Amino acid sequence: MSLQFEVSNVSKTGGRRGELTLPHGVVQTPVFMPVGTAATVKTVPQNVLEEIGSDGRGAEIILANTYHLYLRPGHELIRRAGGVHRFMSWNRPMLTDSGGFQVFSLAKLRKITSDGVEFRSHLDGSKHFFSPEHSMEVQIALGADIMMAFDECVETPATWERTRDSMGLTHAWAQRSLDYWKQHRHEVPWSEEQGSGSRGQVPESSNASPSGPWPLNPEPLRGHQALFGIVQGGMYPDLRKESAERLVEMDFPGYAIGGLAVGEPREVTREMIARALEVLPRDKPVYVMGVGYPDEIEEYAKMGVDMMDCVLPTRAGRHGLVFTREDPNDRSSPVVRMNIKKMDNAEDQRPIDEGCGCMVCRRYTRAYLRHLFHSGEPLGAHLNSVHNLAFYLDTMQRVRSELAAS
Amino acid sequence: MSLQFEVSNVSKTGGRRGELTLPHGVVQTPVFMPVGTAATVKTVPQNVLEEIGSDGRGAEIILANTYHLYLRPGHELIRRAGGVHRFMSWNRPMLTDSGGFQVFSLAKLRKITSDGVEFRSHLDGSKHFFSPEHSMEVQIALGADIMMAFDECVETPATWERTRDSMGLTHAWAQRSLDYWKQHRHEVPWSEEQGSGSRGQVPESSNASPSGPWPLNPEPLRGHQALFGIVQGGMYPDLRKESAERLVEMDFPGYAIGGLAVGEPREVTREMIARALEVLPRDKPVYVMGVGYPDEIEEYAKMGVDMMDCVLPTRAGRHGLVFTREDPNDRSSPVVRMNIKKMDNAEDQRPIDEGCGCMVCRRYTRAYLRHLFHSGEPLGAHLNSVHNLAFYLDTMQRVRSELAAS
Repeated sequence: MSLQFEVSNVSKTGGRRGELTLPHGVVQTPVFMPVGTAATVKTVPQNVLEEIGSDGRGAEIILANTYHLYLRPGHELIRRAGGVHRFMSWNRPMLTDSGGFQVFSLAKLRKITSDGVEFRSHLDGSKHFFSPEHSMEVQIALGADIMMAFDECVETPATWERTRDSMGLTHAWAQRSLDYWKQHRHEVPWSEEQGSGSRGQVPESSNASPSGPWPLNPEPLRGHQALFGIVQGGMYPDLRKESAERLVEMDFPGYAIGGLAVGEPREVTREMIARALEVLPRDKPVYVMGVGYPDEIEEYAKMGVDMMDCVLPTRAGRHGLVFTREDPNDRSSPVVRMNIKKMDNAEDQRPIDEGCGCMVCRRYTRAYLRHLFHSGEPLGAHLNSVHNLAFYLDTMQRVRSELAAS
Repeated sequence: MSLQFEVSNVSKTGGRRGELTLPHGVVQTPVFMPVGTAATVKTVPQNVLEEIGSDGRGAEIILANTYHLYLRPGHELIRRAGGVHRFMSWNRPMLTDSGGFQVFSLAKLRKITSDGVEFRSHLDGSKHFFSPEHSMEVQIALGADIMMAFDECVETPATWERTRDSMGLTHAWAQRSLDYWKQHRHEVPWSEEQGSGSRGQVPESSNASPSGPWPLNPEPLRGHQALFGIVQGGMYPDLRKESAERLVEMDFPGYAIGGLAVGEPREVTREMIARALEVLPRDKPVYVMGVGYPDEIEEYAKMGVDMMDCVLPTRAGRHGLVFTREDPNDRSSPVVRMNIKKMDNAEDQRPIDEGCGCMVCRRYTRAYLRHLFHSGEPLGAHLNSVHNLAFYLDTMQRVRSELAAS
């Protein structure tokens, strides 16, 4: 068993209040997943991630990027450490992307064939090759609870013909991803089927102790990783529908909707999500990749999306942008993005957001946060990121309450 | 009353186990003070500072730099916020230096007269003037529990004559610092003598709420700031003795030994400290400024020094250098400085220091910390800093236990 998904309530708009059970724990959905690209949510220690948000429950699931971890420190190193959970000391669910999006957006000199993608590392220019099989192999070594099929991400804008061809490749790769996963999923480092073998692979010379400083999952876990297929189809409703249908035939444990939030107007994003949701099965989780602003994640959750991720809360935080509400006492009021550096904040003794109960807003003033940012102090980026993540998690907590009551 | 200092035990080597009571709380001595230059201990949130160290007691006193806060965000802004404690949300004791050392080491185009120092900001080249009186005014606005007399820091090496002349200026400035402090110490923003005036100075346009998000000291505190005189005298034992004698005549609440750890051999540092300790009164706290390595702070504490500060634990941490013991099970064994980036650590599943109980060593492996640092992830500098600070605080905790039992 790779995952269990139970929906307890569905709103009139299609929003679903659910619970996703994964090998490393239970996730309340709809959920926002903080992005931990290189096995770290930038600037945020794991114990803070576990407590972030006004209710102190923390992030229930985080994401890591396969492309980055493959290049550095390398997936075999992480496999030998017992998987990415143990490597980074995170004992809750995780998801890895397939590396596809990063190969297409970050790597240099890509050469795409039906077999896979040859590319050069953005770090050192070294040559690499990702196929669906290799992406699966890497993701199994990382051992996140959920892994993603390897897909091609079409450039934007792209013609209908180009998009259809790319989608065809994505579907072929989805099937190959699925086939590889079915044959190899027992190889995940923490599986009971895998037995103790994975931990025995640590070379003696490395001084490695199999237990590490933190007693993370001393016993192998039951079950294995889940694999999600990715709906593509660019900005063409008919292709989105076709892509969803084709993937549903393959019968994945869950489905993602990819290739969105790449510069298109929001109504287009919304329509593409809607077309896919019409086709995707109601009893499996749906994940929209890489979105978005707090009001977007709320909107899509209410349409029936169960999972979302975005670098925005941490990236904005590092750039001094923090999220608040137009009316701090009305948590449904419009989202406002504030530049903490602005002169108005210099002597403002209020917290970032007077209606926010996060650990940053409970303790620090705008004046102090402005000073930190203005002085280039690393604590500024950290505290901004913690608030923004809390803002996202709190938003989803409120959406879950609304969906449960609807 | 500015401070109370009670020594409960004195070891054969002169080390003193004491308790220093200040307006914002009690400090167990000998104590190591983390440096929070710009009202932040770099990369470390205040709640972590409150819990850092294996015993979870955290830092009992931290330091902030007057020169930096004067330039940015400005001492009058901090005064209007209620003082540096309230500004940064730190409710425990603090100490500010006089700005002297930074003016002499960081600022540009200094012009020294007997009246004070004219200098240009290292940030923007703007022209400023610090006199003893102005340093006191700034430090009273900041409102740390302990402030320091304004001193001249002589260059190294310096002739006996040059050092004697500089020392003479330092003594004249010490007297002027003391005179100003006696006349103006009631102006500290949090004093009950000051009343509510300080909080009323916030301009209405700033949206300031006098209470802020964090209910820090809603009532004015009893007492006022303490002022420490600074023993100078370069590397000349006779001048060190003379300087200590001269300052003792002025009768400060406490004494610092300055101008050390500026490149001289350690046996010279040790001798200069010893010469001053011979003269300084046993019933007042002694603070050696800007030292040092963990074995140094242990050594000086055992000689009778009550307080020390150093940027080393955080600065080294940001550069990937972490402190351990040669024998992790013997906390008195020699200190080892390890480069977390080294290849040997790539698959090392041990904590930084197997004998350390800090929050970093309880959770993260060397392999993960190496990965963070190698990947330029900001979490690496943070976790290294937290471990190093814990290492220093734990060292002093052990020294206090030894002194109590001696």
